[in-house]
Amino acid sequence: MIFTLYMKTVFFIADGMADLPCMELNGLTPLEAAKTPNMDLIAKKGISGLMDIIKPGTVPGSDVAHLALFGLDPYEYYTGRGPFEAAGLGLDVYPGDIAARVNFATRNADGIVIDRRAGRIREGTAELANLLDGLEIDGVKILFKAGSEHRSALILRGRGLSDRIQSNDPKKEGKPFYEVKALEDTDSAKKTVNIIKKLIKIAEEKFLSAEVNKRRVEANQLLANTLLIRGFGQAPHIPSFLQRTNMKSVCVAGGGLYKGVAALLGMDVIDVPGATGGVTSDIEMKVKYAIEALDSYDFVFLHIKGTDNYGHDGNALGKKEFIEKIDKVIEPLVKVCERGDLVVITSDHSTPCIAKDHTADPVPVIIAGGDVRIDDVTSFGERACAKGGNLRFKGIHLLSIILSAMGLGKKFGA
Amino acid sequence: MIFTLYMKTVFFIADGMADLPCMELNGLTPLEAAKTPNMDLIAKKGISGLMDIIKPGTVPGSDVAHLALFGLDPYEYYTGRGPFEAAGLGLDVYPGDIAARVNFATRNADGIVIDRRAGRIREGTAELANLLDGLEIDGVKILFKAGSEHRSALILRGRGLSDRIQSNDPKKEGKPFYEVKALEDTDSAKKTVNIIKKLIKIAEEKFLSAEVNKRRVEANQLLANTLLIRGFGQAPHIPSFLQRTNMKSVCVAGGGLYKGVAALLGMDVIDVPGATGGVTSDIEMKVKYAIEALDSYDFVFLHIKGTDNYGHDGNALGKKEFIEKIDKVIEPLVKVCERGDLVVITSDHSTPCIAKDHTADPVPVIIAGGDVRIDDVTSFGERACAKGGNLRFKGIHLLSIILSAMGLGKKFGA
Repeated sequence: MIFTLYMKTVFFIADGMADLPCMELNGLTPLEAAKTPNMDLIAKKGISGLMDIIKPGTVPGSDVAHLALFGLDPYEYYTGRGPFEAAGLGLDVYPGDIAARVNFATRNADGIVIDRRAGRIREGTAELANLLDGLEIDGVKILFKAGSEHRSALILRGRGLSDRIQSNDPKKEGKPFYEVKALEDTDSAKKTVNIIKKLIKIAEEKFLSAEVNKRRVEANQLLANTLLIRGFGQAPHIPSFLQRTNMKSVCVAGGGLYKGVAALLGMDVIDVPGATGGVTSDIEMKVKYAIEALDSYDFVFLHIKGTDNYGHDGNALGKKEFIEKIDKVIEPLVKVCERGDLVVITSDHSTPCIAKDHTADPVPVIIAGGDVRIDDVTSFGERACAKGGNLRFKGIHLLSIILSAMGLGKKFGA
Repeated sequence: MIFTLYMKTVFFIADGMADLPCMELNGLTPLEAAKTPNMDLIAKKGISGLMDIIKPGTVPGSDVAHLALFGLDPYEYYTGRGPFEAAGLGLDVYPGDIAARVNFATRNADGIVIDRRAGRIREGTAELANLLDGLEIDGVKILFKAGSEHRSALILRGRGLSDRIQSNDPKKEGKPFYEVKALEDTDSAKKTVNIIKKLIKIAEEKFLSAEVNKRRVEANQLLANTLLIRGFGQAPHIPSFLQRTNMKSVCVAGGGLYKGVAALLGMDVIDVPGATGGVTSDIEMKVKYAIEALDSYDFVFLHIKGTDNYGHDGNALGKKEFIEKIDKVIEPLVKVCERGDLVVITSDHSTPCIAKDHTADPVPVIIAGGDVRIDDVTSFGERACAKGGNLRFKGIHLLSIILSAMGLGKKFGA
């Protein structure tokens, strides 16, 4: 039998769920407008509040937000998105590795970006990744792994490397590639630039004769004939979640970034069939896996991404309906808190439909179960939680608050 | 045509408006007791909260408060009041300049301060300033400019200077002058002390034969025959407001300090006829200029000082009436937020009538317009805003909150 603590926590992040008043919803937010009997019940059984993920007024990226929510100061631990994406694809990222996000893309003979996603390539990318994975360039080892669609990630492992490298991605089609350039005047940056340039050259040569591209020529599809590389970051040394909290932890997520953060933190990562990190993800299955994981883990991080996608699309009605769908599938969380375990529900940032992007608006947060000071908030929403018993606090403090509620707080002083 | 952003902000500071319960007002604060239909309407259309200008319990000076309200950490950027006052008088302050506030004052032959304000001199001070402006002492250039009444400011521009200098101002009449002294044992402090001593000597010699003093002798008025110099500060290098926020900004204020902060931040400064920074200032004209400035600027900083003066005088009834006068003239701000632009109303600190000085009590703040999460606060007041949707936050975060609300927030992470 696996050892677990007396009390457990389900930590549920609905990505970008928090919002602003929407005209289509008569001035309500999608969360306020949605019928959410289960989340309301959990709010009723818990203590609510507002949370500034980083600090008031600071707009959080998803990577940075999750570091803070897991108690790590992003100003100390965030070095760029690459390491998280690489870890999310299942690459073993070691402290010191230089990691980056990569797109398979299409270029023409004049060095113009024709398609940043290689005709939205969906199949055959593992073949391309394998052509590069394991290469050694100037004594540095290349790890390369394909993700979903056009996405992949790479790791440079070796001495004397830097992450201060400018991407070659012009971010728009029809433009010439940016030159891969050092952003600092150091030998390590120059060395890294040379390796990346050589890698791109090798990739372009090898990809020309790849089977997948032969098939794409026949099917009259755009070739995956080059790489866009961005989000360089040197993997930080992150103390493990177990070491910091004494909790056995696991991640149930679809999106690569969230799995990546979890992996870098030393959480186990469960692959759920049908979990895609998109709006069609099998979120019912994810909740099922999360609940089952409570048997073997103390801390289950459940992440659902679709809310954020609707926010970025500016689709208030779709977001409201997706939140209602979430509410249905998380019904088992009611029982979790009723039996005394802890349930935490929040977002990693606001993605207001009106902004179609992240904003700094604080997110609502409920902590239910255990012996929390139950307040009089009876519905889960941005403005309802502003009247909650936890008032307003910073994201970096959430994990400590959970640990204290679980009886695992570390005393400062005697 | 001048480029401006889609959304604009009027940032209105009523200096020292926040207060404590006053006996004369039956336990209400002046703001609570005042009839303020326009501010109440803006509160109704916005999100309210309490703001600790620096941090809870820290009593803010006006200079430091404004740095924080414009998003600059005063612990990093505040070096003393001198640079702000000098900039407020229209002197071009460069980073590295040593600046100080100066009073024209009256001394007797025994070195006793007879009047710290030279008989409340009102005219002829430009002549005195011109006698010193442009001097060079020990290779250091002196810039000197007269302000209102007895007030003026000076700049020392040159190498090897220090702002760690003790003022010669004993702060009370009938006392001997303090010795100008170095507060650190450095060559630059010693050099600066010598220059200041020489400057005072030169001033005393030149002022004796000044026309203004001849007239004052005839009129049986106290002579402006010496200088009290205080508030030494080395001008910090402040990144420009435009650079930090992408907003074209302008200041509409009467008081020199506020113009000075704005000038040092790189804001344009509009001189409004009749704007004095006192209780008789033409505040209706100021609001008119502020509203007109919205045509050409993204961010209009409107400052009204009179509320603070009533607080320092302990005049609760006067303060209440002045707040009612403010409320009348700011009626156009209602339309500004109704058309979707942002209106922010707050104070730079509390100046409670009972304290006759600044206190650390947090100030109420409204943000209205745009797509803010409108809360259920329907009147503007210290205790009403404590129930607002923004709860409580620090002054240094206000500008970022505004930027995020305007869609100009910078994402930390990806």
